[in-house]
Amino acid sequence: MPQGKPLTVPDDGLSTRERRQQPLLMVHTGDGKGKSTAAFGLAIRAWNQGWNVGVFQFVKSAKWRIGEQTVLERLGELHRETGEGGPVEWHKMGAGWSWSRKEGSETDHAVEAAEGWAEVKRRLAEESHDLLVLDEFTYPMEWGWVDVDDVVETLANRPGRQYVVVTGRRAHPRLVEVADLVTEMTKVKHQMDRGQKGQKGIEW
Amino acid sequence: MPQGKPLTVPDDGLSTRERRQQPLLMVHTGDGKGKSTAAFGLAIRAWNQGWNVGVFQFVKSAKWRIGEQTVLERLGELHRETGEGGPVEWHKMGAGWSWSRKEGSETDHAVEAAEGWAEVKRRLAEESHDLLVLDEFTYPMEWGWVDVDDVVETLANRPGRQYVVVTGRRAHPRLVEVADLVTEMTKVKHQMDRGQKGQKGIEW
Repeated sequence: MPQGKPLTVPDDGLSTRERRQQPLLMVHTGDGKGKSTAAFGLAIRAWNQGWNVGVFQFVKSAKWRIGEQTVLERLGELHRETGEGGPVEWHKMGAGWSWSRKEGSETDHAVEAAEGWAEVKRRLAEESHDLLVLDEFTYPMEWGWVDVDDVVETLANRPGRQYVVVTGRRAHPRLVEVADLVTEMTKVKHQMDRGQKGQKGIEW
Repeated sequence: MPQGKPLTVPDDGLSTRERRQQPLLMVHTGDGKGKSTAAFGLAIRAWNQGWNVGVFQFVKSAKWRIGEQTVLERLGELHRETGEGGPVEWHKMGAGWSWSRKEGSETDHAVEAAEGWAEVKRRLAEESHDLLVLDEFTYPMEWGWVDVDDVVETLANRPGRQYVVVTGRRAHPRLVEVADLVTEMTKVKHQMDRGQKGQKGIEW
């Protein structure tokens, strides 16, 4: 709801308009559904505003293609063809990042995750995107594959107007601390508890 | 993650495949962000599977157009033009439902909500859609604008293979009871607490 009224007006010397325009660092965490889905939903909205969207999936086994990737890449194609919306890039770690495809080598997920973060860091410095989705990035942070201090400082001090969404369970407390908007998705009830498996069209 | 393993296998006489194919009734509730965004994300996925998607926004003042509407309607247009994905219909209550536009009459939200539900009920009986998003439908239920027993029984006993997502705060306990998947989005931290207002591209 765009008409939401702030509870307090901070004494930061900014006008409402300037404050409204501050780019956000968002975190979707918790054990429930919808963390990534809501992030890709934001990407769809961003595309519609003509923003440059970059999605980075830090998923060990993301060899499959999810529906959102097909749709967002199709929207990126529409942008190139007709000028509608904005440009879209979608990268995933699972089968090796597209920018560093290594032939025949064994995959070391820790090394791959660190490479992915190094690329995201370069893009943040160059302000390549308006919205960056770092999907399931809480796990490389949890497992020590990337340096938490480096991540937190880089995200907190990113230049310009770059929106960032990080998704995944157990978001690091330091990430939560620097984030502007943190939402926890909690499972209240799930059909898997009844013995039902994931479904095409709903789960991927 | 499609590879999730069920914790228990129910003794319901169904094969894993049959159980997997049971259509779901989903609820996104809680005070946090992402309830509707995640539902529209499911709609995007459904489109990509070639499903027939119907979105019904039960929002009092939905006169504005959100990014997802533009994008999903554009995807529906692509379907008509190229056969990609599935058909999409998007209806909203704000300025009067598109199927019953009344000229010059005062808007009675309670009557409008009841009309919206009657139409959804007809479509469920006719199996018009594969996925129905009933956005912010918890409020007409809470305010007594629609009959809770009727809604719960109709949704629980809907024929065929129709997926339904209901969004909104304070989901009715009876709706939660019959739902297959309930996710609560909880606000951990929100920039509005710091006095920042909604942002174009992020909030709508």
